[in-house]
Amino acid sequence: MRKSIYLGLVHFPVYNKNVDVVSTSVTNFDIHDISRTCRTYDISQYHIIIPVDAQKSLTERIINYWQDGFGANYNKDREEAFERTKVYDSIKKSIEEIKKIENKNPILITTSAKIFNNSISYSELSELSEKIFSDDNPYLLLFGTGWGLTDEIMDLSDYILNPIRGNAEYNHLSVRSAVSIILDRLLGEN
Amino acid sequence: MRKSIYLGLVHFPVYNKNVDVVSTSVTNFDIHDISRTCRTYDISQYHIIIPVDAQKSLTERIINYWQDGFGANYNKDREEAFERTKVYDSIKKSIEEIKKIENKNPILITTSAKIFNNSISYSELSELSEKIFSDDNPYLLLFGTGWGLTDEIMDLSDYILNPIRGNAEYNHLSVRSAVSIILDRLLGEN
Repeated sequence: MRKSIYLGLVHFPVYNKNVDVVSTSVTNFDIHDISRTCRTYDISQYHIIIPVDAQKSLTERIINYWQDGFGANYNKDREEAFERTKVYDSIKKSIEEIKKIENKNPILITTSAKIFNNSISYSELSELSEKIFSDDNPYLLLFGTGWGLTDEIMDLSDYILNPIRGNAEYNHLSVRSAVSIILDRLLGEN
Repeated sequence: MRKSIYLGLVHFPVYNKNVDVVSTSVTNFDIHDISRTCRTYDISQYHIIIPVDAQKSLTERIINYWQDGFGANYNKDREEAFERTKVYDSIKKSIEEIKKIENKNPILITTSAKIFNNSISYSELSELSEKIFSDDNPYLLLFGTGWGLTDEIMDLSDYILNPIRGNAEYNHLSVRSAVSIILDRLLGEN
């Protein structure tokens, strides 16, 4: 079983609608839905990346509720999902944590609703999927909230995944749906 | 382009944790995330099935906000996503509506986190996917909230999809994630 794939949900730095760099709010469903999806695909850790102190402590309180509070007894599945969910201030801190665990820097995979020069197509995705399963590098998959990760972060990426297309022109999936589909395409049974 | 695939999110009748038949609450993210996913995969209509009047009118108010209210101007993508989102009292009403549009009864596909005698496996899924694209029957994909669709509804199904496995034992995805992954497996580019 692959054990060194990490996923980060980035609340800063991301763009807003007007392409300003902002910090977005954590939503409760980002914590729950993505923790459950990560657990299903055996992601090593899910990092919620948020530098705002009040947001950080609220997020930690929610995670603790389902880990140690009433929630842990009420719903064991949720407790299990939240075991690997952590909160970090920045992408840098998230990468440092991975390096500490894995003894090397993770390979960075980002996703975007836009196409970049170094974006990889759907067919190249299955090659990447094989590579992820066969080599022993740690990987960090980064997803942006708001209107997406800043160009600065995209420039740091080893791989950029193409925007998800269903079978229509419309491609404005929620980040929760995008995470689910990409993990299934990369790591799912097939 | 396939134009007669419908998706229903069922709030009643579903099981709760203690296997009582209940009606669950509509959550805002069920409306937003699933409308956006349905639009991405070109689903004809997304039916939110909820018999409770107060819940029904709240749901309709949220949809209208993004269709006609402030939201429609603020976010055109969301307006587009919500164009095909409708609220119905019951599965029966949802099927009647589809029959009115398509002039025949839809083939019923349900999904479950449990395995039934007539569940179909992942490899049979791609055959079903081809069938969906090649025949001209309408299809209705039903997803249960809470602890899943009642056995009575499962008995009515033409196809039951196997629970989604990632690459771990854990399979407690949110219904929003399950919808995303199943639509991608059935209808996505590949």
